[in-house]
Amino acid sequence: MSQQLENKRHTLAHLLAAAVLEHYPHAKLTLGPAIENGFYYDINFSDGERLGDDGLKEVQKTMKKLLNKWDEFSHKEVTVEEAREIYQDNPFKLELIEEIAERGEPITLYTCGGFTDLCRGGHSERPNKEIAADSFKLDKVAGAYWRGDEKKPMLTRIYGLAFENKEELDAYEAQIEEAKKRDHRKIGKEQDLFTFSELVGAGLPLWTPRGTIVRHQLDTYIWQLREKHGYQRVTIPHITKRDLYQTSGHWDKFADELFRITTREGKEYALKPMNCPHHTQIFARHPHSYREMPQRYAETTMVYRDEQSGELGGLTRVLSITQDDSHVFCRHSQVKEEFFRIWDIIDTFYGTFGFSLRVRLSFHEPSEMEHYLGTEEIWHNAENALREIAKERNADYFEAPGEAAMYGPKLDFMAKDSLGREHQVATIQLDMNLPERFDLTCVNENGEKERVVMIHAAIMGSIERFTAVLLEHLGGNLPLWLAPEQLSVVPVADTHNAYAHEVAEQLHAAGLRVHLDDSNESLGKKIRAAKTAKLPYFIVVGDQEVADKTVTLEKRDGTKSVMALEALVARLQKEVADKEM
Amino acid sequence: MSQQLENKRHTLAHLLAAAVLEHYPHAKLTLGPAIENGFYYDINFSDGERLGDDGLKEVQKTMKKLLNKWDEFSHKEVTVEEAREIYQDNPFKLELIEEIAERGEPITLYTCGGFTDLCRGGHSERPNKEIAADSFKLDKVAGAYWRGDEKKPMLTRIYGLAFENKEELDAYEAQIEEAKKRDHRKIGKEQDLFTFSELVGAGLPLWTPRGTIVRHQLDTYIWQLREKHGYQRVTIPHITKRDLYQTSGHWDKFADELFRITTREGKEYALKPMNCPHHTQIFARHPHSYREMPQRYAETTMVYRDEQSGELGGLTRVLSITQDDSHVFCRHSQVKEEFFRIWDIIDTFYGTFGFSLRVRLSFHEPSEMEHYLGTEEIWHNAENALREIAKERNADYFEAPGEAAMYGPKLDFMAKDSLGREHQVATIQLDMNLPERFDLTCVNENGEKERVVMIHAAIMGSIERFTAVLLEHLGGNLPLWLAPEQLSVVPVADTHNAYAHEVAEQLHAAGLRVHLDDSNESLGKKIRAAKTAKLPYFIVVGDQEVADKTVTLEKRDGTKSVMALEALVARLQKEVADKEM
Repeated sequence: MSQQLENKRHTLAHLLAAAVLEHYPHAKLTLGPAIENGFYYDINFSDGERLGDDGLKEVQKTMKKLLNKWDEFSHKEVTVEEAREIYQDNPFKLELIEEIAERGEPITLYTCGGFTDLCRGGHSERPNKEIAADSFKLDKVAGAYWRGDEKKPMLTRIYGLAFENKEELDAYEAQIEEAKKRDHRKIGKEQDLFTFSELVGAGLPLWTPRGTIVRHQLDTYIWQLREKHGYQRVTIPHITKRDLYQTSGHWDKFADELFRITTREGKEYALKPMNCPHHTQIFARHPHSYREMPQRYAETTMVYRDEQSGELGGLTRVLSITQDDSHVFCRHSQVKEEFFRIWDIIDTFYGTFGFSLRVRLSFHEPSEMEHYLGTEEIWHNAENALREIAKERNADYFEAPGEAAMYGPKLDFMAKDSLGREHQVATIQLDMNLPERFDLTCVNENGEKERVVMIHAAIMGSIERFTAVLLEHLGGNLPLWLAPEQLSVVPVADTHNAYAHEVAEQLHAAGLRVHLDDSNESLGKKIRAAKTAKLPYFIVVGDQEVADKTVTLEKRDGTKSVMALEALVARLQKEVADKEM
Repeated sequence: MSQQLENKRHTLAHLLAAAVLEHYPHAKLTLGPAIENGFYYDINFSDGERLGDDGLKEVQKTMKKLLNKWDEFSHKEVTVEEAREIYQDNPFKLELIEEIAERGEPITLYTCGGFTDLCRGGHSERPNKEIAADSFKLDKVAGAYWRGDEKKPMLTRIYGLAFENKEELDAYEAQIEEAKKRDHRKIGKEQDLFTFSELVGAGLPLWTPRGTIVRHQLDTYIWQLREKHGYQRVTIPHITKRDLYQTSGHWDKFADELFRITTREGKEYALKPMNCPHHTQIFARHPHSYREMPQRYAETTMVYRDEQSGELGGLTRVLSITQDDSHVFCRHSQVKEEFFRIWDIIDTFYGTFGFSLRVRLSFHEPSEMEHYLGTEEIWHNAENALREIAKERNADYFEAPGEAAMYGPKLDFMAKDSLGREHQVATIQLDMNLPERFDLTCVNENGEKERVVMIHAAIMGSIERFTAVLLEHLGGNLPLWLAPEQLSVVPVADTHNAYAHEVAEQLHAAGLRVHLDDSNESLGKKIRAAKTAKLPYFIVVGDQEVADKTVTLEKRDGTKSVMALEALVARLQKEVADKEM
């Protein structure tokens, strides 16, 4: 956000605090920063006071009233003693004062419209001139621990939205409203794609028959794209002895997130949080000549990470993560071509759905080498190689230190969806560390052992997360090839059931996923059901169709066309086959 | 085995003991029974004495010499005191004597050829007349704990083979020799299908690209057969909260074999040992009308059981078991039809590979109700239903009490392989208990909730075990549709590489898994490689083929035929498509 907008949001946090004190004079203020889309203030209310929807409206009204009198900010520096005196009844501010003093920074108080707060500055110059009363509003109330520490007191966080003007605020609210309608959890339920069970637990989605078709179609598409590039599928178990992860380094570096298992004989195993160490053991099963390189392994399989239960939600954060994973074992000289092959797959796949991509070069954080395997030199070389590849590809890229994997730097792809939101999706990772740790080699032209390089890549990243992103991006309107039910045949009355059945049979025989809705519901209700499930097409069969031996095809967008049954089959089959390859 | 053969084998155990004492007079005898294919005797040798291959031969020679003098057995009953006196130096026999006495049974000594042993009888009447010296031989030596208890002394077990006559002995040995050649671990290595890693651990196979093709083809075939019967695929995670298994009963009943996990938040989870409880939660996601019944879910997924490491070996006993699982939720009135549908799939699948099947009705053991869920009445009804189904199907069946699953009785299918060995493979199980525990219902014609029934079924059982059985049954000669590499193209010399490449390209484009062997090896070595890998076909391309634009197709059995390339493609495609459906 611009500095001006940030100052405005920060000013509004002050204004919020002032308004709260008008209504709740005993409330204790703590911290109130500008954030993305607005601002918040964390407040310690006296016991028993709670801010409901009505309270929020009152405070907002007071903010707008007060704003008129907020001409300009003044500030003054005070000594530690003066500050302690002023905030003697507020332990939160006292804690902040001690910290500022410890850092040797000046302690400043900012005042506007008669309200003073401990603050470092950064406000609108003339609040009542610069801030339009209709460009902000209070949004919601939530709980937040003081300093984010669950052992400290729970505070009330009041969120506000603030933009340059009313139009931008309205646009943001409309986007949020649209996002709610498109929430993948809502669509998932409407289209019966997945479910959760309290007995199985949060973060462990159970995929219904329809949802499994979507997963299967997505995975098959990725596999078709990979097969063209010489990938081969492999299969590994979900557990391993501790030894594998001690060699790979995961046992220590992945410490908290690793699900550990002790067998009845007392041996230590773990559930895999990633597939690379297992795949190295398939590569290492026998020596490889340089003539057999690269070896390209692909596997779609679930990995498990022990996430905190508070972080789980829908399909975006799960314990059971289905990765469409691949590992290329190749020579140094083959790295660039292999990256480009994967990049081609990514471009095709995301292009199919109309996402636009940009690339984050996720590099290591030099000051935190303890989080990574390998030497600075290896990292330097690997990161240079990635930068060169991104340049040569003419990619829209940016660098992000501290975002690398444990074993190497990554190209992370960010997809922008139809609501303008960005999601991290595909990844290509260069790894010179695991080949060292597992001593992976090929025999080169001179008969010598040559260290190989590994390239880790996932196109969807995880099927769960990608499905969530895709459902929201498309608002549940899956393309024909991906829709679990591609069309439904709806007879107008019982007398049309026989012909409807015949139509459905022929579509089924042609390999289409067709549903015959011969239930006893009314025609209107049947059509609404097809629309709610967002089927790409439905066909209503009545007297005319029976007489003419035709069908009337209605598309999701309402367009209709009448055609012979054979023409329908041909048209739908063409549409299914028509995805980019 | 016949009583006569059992007596003969028992007699030979005595003879073995007598011969051992000739060579090792201080050895202490323990127990020596007749077993399948022969007999053994467990012997406690004095410290330091070990029986090698040479020792085994010497003992065998002595057995044959002694046999001449073994005319007939005599026996006498002795008192406990007399028996204790006779075996005062043998603590093993003393232990047996006390046990016999405790049971109040007579203590008898049997003597033949001057050798006496504590024994209950059951010998050949006239050993040297009835036992041909060439109808038995000593086989091998192994360690065995006294009474099978690892806390007790380790004894030396000497195994012998014994049959009616030399022909049967030879036939058995030939079968063993053939079984060794067909050992799936050997074939798996030769054909590069799977591997094990010491870092990952025993019982956790890693499937190579070729092995994964075999798995995938088998699984796809099963799915095609199921799809015709209205099955739908679902997808579940590999873990669950403890709650699911407390409701299902697995938490207690599956106690030892359950891999347990404690999360970082201290919650208890388990790795799934079976899929049924998860699948109930998909069924239970919303109410079902009787019109939607049956619901047929299928999923091929790995389950995990904490087996003792000593029991793991090859693919026959693994920790990671891939089940081709299915669960039908149906009404009582639909059970028989659903059983027949699954039975049809089983018949088609096993018929394809030339296995013959018989059926075991695995029932509960009434004296051990604590191992099962549900009441005697539920079990009685369920078992009657299964017996009726087996009768109506005219199946070759037998009943086996004590072999039921925790939740219900089963039809277990036993496949006889090409070496005459029987393997337990497919299973269909009737379950009236889990629907009670999870309160699973449908809404019937009267608008009332009606309790449903579950049918559990696996066609292969586990992909791992079935692959082992199949590789041994076929001696590694997989049919064309299943072979990971279907044929290889072998140019005679470099000059034929271009045409060989063209042939391989066209076969690949036609969807065939073809390997172009343009390595620098000699022609002979390339052909041997194709034969060792048991490829269904290979094509040698030389001057003649290049000139005529033909190919010479050589089958695994050596038959050859010359044809045009298009004819080859058509022939192979037809053979791939030709499996039973």
